[in-house]
Amino acid sequence: MAQVLTQFDTIAAISTPLGEGGISIVRLSGQDAVKIANKVFKGANLAKVASHTIHYGHVIDPETNKVIDECMATVMLAPKTFTRENIVEISCHGGIVVTNDILQLLLANGARMADPGEFTKRAFMNGRIDLTQAESVMDMVRAKTDRARQVAMNQLEGGLMTKIKAMRQDLLDTMAQEEVNIDYPEYDMDDMTGQEMKQKAISVSKKIDELLNTAQEGKIIRSGLATAIVGKPNVGKSSLLNYLTQDDKAIVTDVAGTTRDTLEEYVSVKGAALKLIDTAGIHETSDKVEKIGVERSKKAVDQADLVLLLLDSSRELEQEDRDLLEFTKNKKRIIVLNKNDLGQKISPETIKKMTDSPVVVTSVLQKENLDQLENAIEKLFFKGIENSADQVLVTNQRQASLLVKARQALAEVIKGVDDDMPLDLVQIDLTNAWNDLGEITGESAPDELITQLFSQFCLGK
Amino acid sequence: MAQVLTQFDTIAAISTPLGEGGISIVRLSGQDAVKIANKVFKGANLAKVASHTIHYGHVIDPETNKVIDECMATVMLAPKTFTRENIVEISCHGGIVVTNDILQLLLANGARMADPGEFTKRAFMNGRIDLTQAESVMDMVRAKTDRARQVAMNQLEGGLMTKIKAMRQDLLDTMAQEEVNIDYPEYDMDDMTGQEMKQKAISVSKKIDELLNTAQEGKIIRSGLATAIVGKPNVGKSSLLNYLTQDDKAIVTDVAGTTRDTLEEYVSVKGAALKLIDTAGIHETSDKVEKIGVERSKKAVDQADLVLLLLDSSRELEQEDRDLLEFTKNKKRIIVLNKNDLGQKISPETIKKMTDSPVVVTSVLQKENLDQLENAIEKLFFKGIENSADQVLVTNQRQASLLVKARQALAEVIKGVDDDMPLDLVQIDLTNAWNDLGEITGESAPDELITQLFSQFCLGK
Repeated sequence: MAQVLTQFDTIAAISTPLGEGGISIVRLSGQDAVKIANKVFKGANLAKVASHTIHYGHVIDPETNKVIDECMATVMLAPKTFTRENIVEISCHGGIVVTNDILQLLLANGARMADPGEFTKRAFMNGRIDLTQAESVMDMVRAKTDRARQVAMNQLEGGLMTKIKAMRQDLLDTMAQEEVNIDYPEYDMDDMTGQEMKQKAISVSKKIDELLNTAQEGKIIRSGLATAIVGKPNVGKSSLLNYLTQDDKAIVTDVAGTTRDTLEEYVSVKGAALKLIDTAGIHETSDKVEKIGVERSKKAVDQADLVLLLLDSSRELEQEDRDLLEFTKNKKRIIVLNKNDLGQKISPETIKKMTDSPVVVTSVLQKENLDQLENAIEKLFFKGIENSADQVLVTNQRQASLLVKARQALAEVIKGVDDDMPLDLVQIDLTNAWNDLGEITGESAPDELITQLFSQFCLGK
Repeated sequence: MAQVLTQFDTIAAISTPLGEGGISIVRLSGQDAVKIANKVFKGANLAKVASHTIHYGHVIDPETNKVIDECMATVMLAPKTFTRENIVEISCHGGIVVTNDILQLLLANGARMADPGEFTKRAFMNGRIDLTQAESVMDMVRAKTDRARQVAMNQLEGGLMTKIKAMRQDLLDTMAQEEVNIDYPEYDMDDMTGQEMKQKAISVSKKIDELLNTAQEGKIIRSGLATAIVGKPNVGKSSLLNYLTQDDKAIVTDVAGTTRDTLEEYVSVKGAALKLIDTAGIHETSDKVEKIGVERSKKAVDQADLVLLLLDSSRELEQEDRDLLEFTKNKKRIIVLNKNDLGQKISPETIKKMTDSPVVVTSVLQKENLDQLENAIEKLFFKGIENSADQVLVTNQRQASLLVKARQALAEVIKGVDDDMPLDLVQIDLTNAWNDLGEITGESAPDELITQLFSQFCLGK
């Protein structure tokens, strides 16, 4: 990985979401950004203006002399930019055709179409940010709740990077010490340094454990919680759905190509985004007698991180209820004893004898005890980390699995010392742990990983 | 209408399309834009920076001291701005939650949520643009083809405004001259000035006619052409649809909330956007024998500006063909004699005897003569105005109907002079025409019209 500014070609992309809006931005980054922009922008000589200034003018096709749009051009010269390269941003009237026309003109005049995530990749390649910060950039964009944004912001500010770098430094110090000992065997300090290596491995392992403890919560905050609402007909599923999707809970998602078939509804509960599965099914059947109870639910339950199983408190348990209780038993679930207002033929105690799952007694229709349901969801998934929004969390699978890998290598270190293995062999495991951690920040990440990681970004980022 | 900079409160809105993208912009405009931005932006003192400069920093909630996002802030001070007011644009990581959080923070710190179109409305109220230019701003955003963008650009640059203003000046000169004569009746130049008024009314009427001649073309370029493809089963409708919606013709439309039910496909033919009606119906039925021929088509034809009626050239005319020919006869239509490659049982001459509609002989499957179909569409709707993209066109109904009104008032002027009406009465009609034209540019537009017009804009514009 290059920590030194490298020369790349000049890339261009539309950096605002595509659609009809007030402003769209086409962004150029690279050595020739100003030169290329200058070919199509009239109003100020961008090659002569001061860095970090914005100028009024027109984008004109140099071949036809036709005006494409009235625009503002912002010039930001390296190194104080997002990519550490020269950047020009052309801000034009929003709209799909106008914005595309300007992009095409820049491509015709020497820029290359940027790959997805390539601006952020350059910020990484040029050493402005590490890989965890790069990942947090997309987490910011995709954040569905305030809590998710806050966690991404902490990571963007280098929270996770700082912790990982400190652990790596710890390991590096020990490795360097050991190198000295290997080079000067006459000092014969093996016993002592073996113990030192073991102690270091234990202390770093503990820190890794602390981070991994945040991984489940981090994943949920970042990706949301796939949630299935199941229960027999008329038990109150669509009432619960309506409650959850009411205005102050619903999360606006504006994803191109969304169709009814694949409709995903997100709601925010205690700062976690619940992705409600198969709500179309619930909507569809809300007005009629549902024909498919268990069968339809099975598919939703399969995909779910969380199952909300509704039982009718005012009637005895029926076979369908028992079936649902049975086939959701291995899922994280909350049993909702609904229609509490109509009587209590099923007591919470009865259910608690059958399962360890938390039980909440509600009347969704009367809006009773719905806060308890929300609390139960929070309790089930958030391990009581105080103010988790302020904490450094491990938010993605890549980071978590590398931490696990590093912990395994450290376990080998401990075992090696305990088994009196030669220290230069133990050293290999220590180096592996150091490398695994380096892969998290990108300091020792292979090129393919980096390419693959940034390819998941959106265009223009 | 105010041509002098007026004091308004400070407004804020998200100016980029809402969605996941690289950059989102929250825009502030008004006297306190810098003051409000400064409350939440840390990194530079925006009150002390030069105008038209951009600064790196963080948006921080002043109450909780929590960082919302890493941002760039652009300061543009009045009067050289889009609204002629102080503007601050905060450019943040794209994404719905982040962008909304920043907007909410600005609203909590003294800004008011902008109405749709309010930034452009201020540009108009502060005299930077006239009403035709304001309208062209939204036309730019909504442009679906290059030609539409170009026409909007001409109008944005003041093309239509200049013509209208020149006509108004003509009328005003005549009116002023007449005022002199009315004030000094002893000169008794009534006969002469009556003729002058008539001549002026005739010459301005002619100019209005020229503009109105562009109105149909303008409307089509701006709004597209609702197009129905009809014909009996297996005549080639879905092949034609596939041809039209192939990549280089399809227009990307990215409208939130689009569902299969209401899918609109836009394609570009000779710079006009064809909005294909009921393509879902054609897709659905493409693989099976269609059950509903005429019935389904009737609804599509009702909405259509253009009907493409497909007949099977290789088979004799059948009753269903005759029905379709009959009920589309009052529509602008093109008869497509398809499957030409399979034989010619129907000749173009046969059809031409039955109708004045243009007839094109094609094989859609073999991609034969499809350019002729496109030419026929162009010929039917574009009156042969050379390079219409470079021309000033009347593009909307509001402009067109005011031109018609002005022309009627001028006709009254001519009639009044011919009937020897007292010139101070003729003067009233002349003033009406002058006012009608002024309503186009906004110089004499009533407040309700202005409010109504800008309310159709998108948020953040």
